Amino acid sequence: MSAFQPTDPNFAARVRASFAKQGVMATFGARLSKVEPGEVVIEFPFSLALSQHNGYIHAGVMTTVVDSACGYAAYTLMPADADVLSIEYKVNFMSPAVGESFKGVGKVVKAGRTITVCSGDVIAVANGTEKVVATMLATMIAVRP
Amino acid sequence: MSAFQPTDPNFAARVRASFAKQGVMATFGARLSKVEPGEVVIEFPFSLALSQHNGYIHAGVMTTVVDSACGYAAYTLMPADADVLSIEYKVNFMSPAVGESFKGVGKVVKAGRTITVCSGDVIAVANGTEKVVATMLATMIAVRP
Amino acid sequence: MSAFQPTDPNFAARVRASFAKQGVMATFGARLSKVEPGEVVIEFPFSLALSQHNGYIHAGVMTTVVDSACGYAAYTLMPADADVLSIEYKVNFMSPAVGESFKGVGKVVKAGRTITVCSGDVIAVANGTEKVVATMLATMIAVRP
Amino acid sequence: MSAFQPTDPNFAARVRASFAKQGVMATFGARLSKVEPGEVVIEFPFSLALSQHNGYIHAGVMTTVVDSACGYAAYTLMPADADVLSIEYKVNFMSPAVGESFKGVGKVVKAGRTITVCSGDVIAVANGTEKVVATMLATMIAVRP
Repeated sequence: MSAFQPTDPNFAARVRASFAKQGVMATFGARLSKVEPGEVVIEFPFSLALSQHNGYIHAGVMTTVVDSACGYAAYTLMPADADVLSIEYKVNFMSPAVGESFKGVGKVVKAGRTITVCSGDVIAVANGTEKVVATMLATMIAVRP
Repeated sequence: MSAFQPTDPNFAARVRASFAKQGVMATFGARLSKVEPGEVVIEFPFSLALSQHNGYIHAGVMTTVVDSACGYAAYTLMPADADVLSIEYKVNFMSPAVGESFKGVGKVVKAGRTITVCSGDVIAVANGTEKVVATMLATMIAVRP
Repeated sequence: MSAFQPTDPNFAARVRASFAKQGVMATFGARLSKVEPGEVVIEFPFSLALSQHNGYIHAGVMTTVVDSACGYAAYTLMPADADVLSIEYKVNFMSPAVGESFKGVGKVVKAGRTITVCSGDVIAVANGTEKVVATMLATMIAVRP
Repeated sequence: MSAFQPTDPNFAARVRASFAKQGVMATFGARLSKVEPGEVVIEFPFSLALSQHNGYIHAGVMTTVVDSACGYAAYTLMPADADVLSIEYKVNFMSPAVGESFKGVGKVVKAGRTITVCSGDVIAVANGTEKVVATMLATMIAVRP
């Protein structure tokens, strides 16, 4: 189904184990809802504890979640002994983050041996309707032992 | 001292009132430590509740804090009735965010009527030594009523 | 066919007239090959006069063409009396720009009254095969008289 | 004088030889005006052959020159057998590029073994006055044989 072939058949377990170590994901009430080769989705509920000054979700909170989604999307395609780190990203915020819950969707655009380019979207879910409120373009690096 | 002249003499009170409404800043234990025309600094302590998978501060957490610092730096120069929003930003992560505490430093590069460009740094403080671990280039917009 | 409705029915003529004034497009031998609501394609041939140090097309040349494609994609949806300017963009370079010709494809992601977000791709055409070699995320502004 | 120590004492000759191979620099009438460890400046004159639709220098042309300045700034610190490539960059355009000549100034922010982060400015020179019209944040990679 996916255009990408993982080199490590245990990629999903590896992503879940790493996600469980990200303290900030627990703080945000975030959970992994999709782990496929080259694509990861993380969801989290609205909370005023994550808001900016107008009561919307803070841009940086959305960034945190979609960065992890992009990083883990890259990580699904990396060898078992590699770690993944974000070199840099850019995010555009297109609409206020209004909704009951949010999804950070990360996808691999180009996977390389060292550098992987990913794109991500943040989707706000409100009254059963989904809306893309932010979009990311990110560069990930595979760190080998 | 500053190269910028605020149009609203109450800019600092306006920034502090807005900061107090950002729920995520309380969640991060963050506080405003400098509010000058065109420059704002926000500090927060290390916490495993803000970590990524290696126990360092998550890239998105650093981004959240330096985004608010940049946004408020822009806000210091805006008229009293304007609100500030992040259109977009890009961040490079240069070193692991290791330290006891962190500073997000936001500075105005170019202030315009509608668009303000800011640069930001995230500084890790460890054993009394400061190190720039991330750098941001951001675009803010003044929203008028 | 398009998800976007232009407000100015003469959008294509407006894009073509503006393109004809961009001196650098003539210097690059570039031509408009598609002008639809929210999408513009610009093509140009390989030339050593546009190369970087390895003989590939320079990253900045690709950027120039896909920036114009994105700007004009935004411009197709703007009112007749507005001008378009690039506020900022970010580009990732994924493969060397090897080919006989190149396409800059610009698409509107979110059109607003003042700010329009676009995404762009640079496609290298070699021996009849197309490959995405760079991808852009850009912010355009409508300037009104 | 510089904070950076080049590993290759012949860095300047290496930069000049590579610059001479960039066909687009000749097309733009650009020349290297400074090559120091971690900092490179490239200058070019105004030409309508490099313009956008209002007769200013095209954003992409400025990007081309400041990208080369940043890339060569990184290259000054790389070992003799490495090549430099741009992974990605982001540029903000702050003022129209009006002037008789322009400077692309590239500086190393953080030099690593594989990844180097650079910042750049484009300066317009008009009637003897200099103005920063664009600013870049870029990621360069050292490619080893």
